[in-house]
Amino acid sequence: MTPAARRESLRALLRAAELDALLVTDLVNVRYLSGFTGSNAALLVHAEGERDSRFVTDGRYRTQSAAEVPDLHRLIDRACASAVVKEAGVVGIRRLGFESGHLTVDAHAGLVDLAGRESPRLALRRAPGLVQRLRAVKDDAEIEALRAACAIADSALAELVGAGGLRPGRTEREVAADLERRMWRHGAEGPSFETIVAAGPNSAIPHHRPTDAELAAGDLVKLDFGALRDGYHSDMTRTVVLGDPADWQREVYELVAAAQRAGREALGVGAELAGVDAAARAVIADAGRGEEFSHGLGHGVGLQIHEAPALGPGSEGTLDAGMTVTVEPGVYLAGRGGVRIEDTLVIRAHGAELLTRTDRELLAL
Amino acid sequence: MTPAARRESLRALLRAAELDALLVTDLVNVRYLSGFTGSNAALLVHAEGERDSRFVTDGRYRTQSAAEVPDLHRLIDRACASAVVKEAGVVGIRRLGFESGHLTVDAHAGLVDLAGRESPRLALRRAPGLVQRLRAVKDDAEIEALRAACAIADSALAELVGAGGLRPGRTEREVAADLERRMWRHGAEGPSFETIVAAGPNSAIPHHRPTDAELAAGDLVKLDFGALRDGYHSDMTRTVVLGDPADWQREVYELVAAAQRAGREALGVGAELAGVDAAARAVIADAGRGEEFSHGLGHGVGLQIHEAPALGPGSEGTLDAGMTVTVEPGVYLAGRGGVRIEDTLVIRAHGAELLTRTDRELLAL
Repeated sequence: MTPAARRESLRALLRAAELDALLVTDLVNVRYLSGFTGSNAALLVHAEGERDSRFVTDGRYRTQSAAEVPDLHRLIDRACASAVVKEAGVVGIRRLGFESGHLTVDAHAGLVDLAGRESPRLALRRAPGLVQRLRAVKDDAEIEALRAACAIADSALAELVGAGGLRPGRTEREVAADLERRMWRHGAEGPSFETIVAAGPNSAIPHHRPTDAELAAGDLVKLDFGALRDGYHSDMTRTVVLGDPADWQREVYELVAAAQRAGREALGVGAELAGVDAAARAVIADAGRGEEFSHGLGHGVGLQIHEAPALGPGSEGTLDAGMTVTVEPGVYLAGRGGVRIEDTLVIRAHGAELLTRTDRELLAL
Repeated sequence: MTPAARRESLRALLRAAELDALLVTDLVNVRYLSGFTGSNAALLVHAEGERDSRFVTDGRYRTQSAAEVPDLHRLIDRACASAVVKEAGVVGIRRLGFESGHLTVDAHAGLVDLAGRESPRLALRRAPGLVQRLRAVKDDAEIEALRAACAIADSALAELVGAGGLRPGRTEREVAADLERRMWRHGAEGPSFETIVAAGPNSAIPHHRPTDAELAAGDLVKLDFGALRDGYHSDMTRTVVLGDPADWQREVYELVAAAQRAGREALGVGAELAGVDAAARAVIADAGRGEEFSHGLGHGVGLQIHEAPALGPGSEGTLDAGMTVTVEPGVYLAGRGGVRIEDTLVIRAHGAELLTRTDRELLAL
């Protein structure tokens, strides 16, 4: 799907919301709708078509934006959102939606003042999440980008294990850097978020930042990482044991694996988001470990590492074909260690397809 | 300066603004004021002291927050800002400032609703930039962290050049990865932003993302990069030539170097921000190349790669001792090549001290 086709899809949502146009300030949404990858820009997407739509960026991106956004009327102005509001007045827009889940209170107040001075008939209206709603359902090219990003992570982990990279004496930081270097060699633009390598008691910290702590025999080692490729993020967690697993490690691992399987099996078109979370959570709660699974089950993933839909106890809505989500239950025993197993999947008509393909058996190294 | 001492400094600003307390939602500000480094948290800083101040994070960070934030009353709640507003009502706050330059329109509306239901006497008041104002002036420990981050970048570049890493036939991506790996070996947590390596005509793109394009003899090669260390960011740009510089390359280089020197020499306590930009810009404009310097002169740098103060034509205010800023003029000739030279400096009573120490002579490799 081209950016122009996405703008056309957005127009249907704008008309349904009785908006003449949308001011797009969230840069991820700007990228989705225009192809622009720089760090300062805004869009005016007019409900009636391309003629009165606009792209604005600053002087640093004059050359880049000409290449990336050849099909929209472009303006160069450092104050991108203000320039869009001025243009909206010029082309006669009255009901201008804005991304109220992104624009700050101060930025909004500034735009309201500007509109009041320059275009008294222009009204700014809250219009949260319209582009996010489109983005939640991936098109084929996006799914292939995510598949490529996931394959890079799979390959890097397989290589790391094959090369003996997970062994006592290496530090968490060394392992993280090794994994990132291997992802880069396989074509990643970079890691898709700060790589988590957590050994021993650190594995009980859900979001641990790698330290100079050394991996030791008997440790659970949790690796949560991903590759960024063409702007798309992969996300996978595996937990291994260095040496023979202790009984408690095996018990926790099998419990998390069973919960993760239950979560994956609950995926499918029409499944309630909260119901998917509940399917996995019930497995852990039934084992008396509900308190030790302290976060939601998963999240959408795409141009952002966390995006719609969330899979948590309080999530509302259902899954659609083409959504991509993570399933990542964990059980964390403070001071001892923790296990998390996470995959990225795409929702299909029946069930879901795994994009991360590394297997989920307990790996003892 | 400890987080507790910073909270005490903030209290003076709160009382001057006639606020009973501040809701802190910007995670960088949360880190500055509490030491917490995770990805979801909020603070209540009460103007009267620590007793009614609060720290909130979610269940993933129970262990980490206990270690990082031992000196504040901690709560675990996934909806951190809402939890702060509820607590503010419980402790009898009436005028609660919020970070209006950070909180979104929707988040603000949700908090206003919540306060209306639970604490009708609590009023939310816009209070932008209070913590940013404190953060703009670095304490000694922060300056040492920035110095260490800058030294990592200096060492990595010196090694890269010494090892012959800048040579025809390597790709921009290879050079970027090489530079990042060397920074990591010198102790960086990672790059402080997406490393820019731009060769030949690509060097005319101010913010170019490295590609598989190969460096070629005769190219200008622009390297804009930095190291992240203990949460602090370094920022430096150098431009080299592969082979004997052409006359036009030497001319543009010397012009940018002269402008950069003029910018650095304009720094000092009390200097007008816009005046520093103007000092450098005049050098380039006088040479008839004003149009080809398409961005501001520099920016503050610290816990964020871009923070207060900005050094641009429209900047208002003056420099204080302890502020850390970049000075980075550039001249970009579309289709041919560009030069940027950038340093990070700390403002002293007289002038400024360079934290990036790689020299600024034209390097021909």
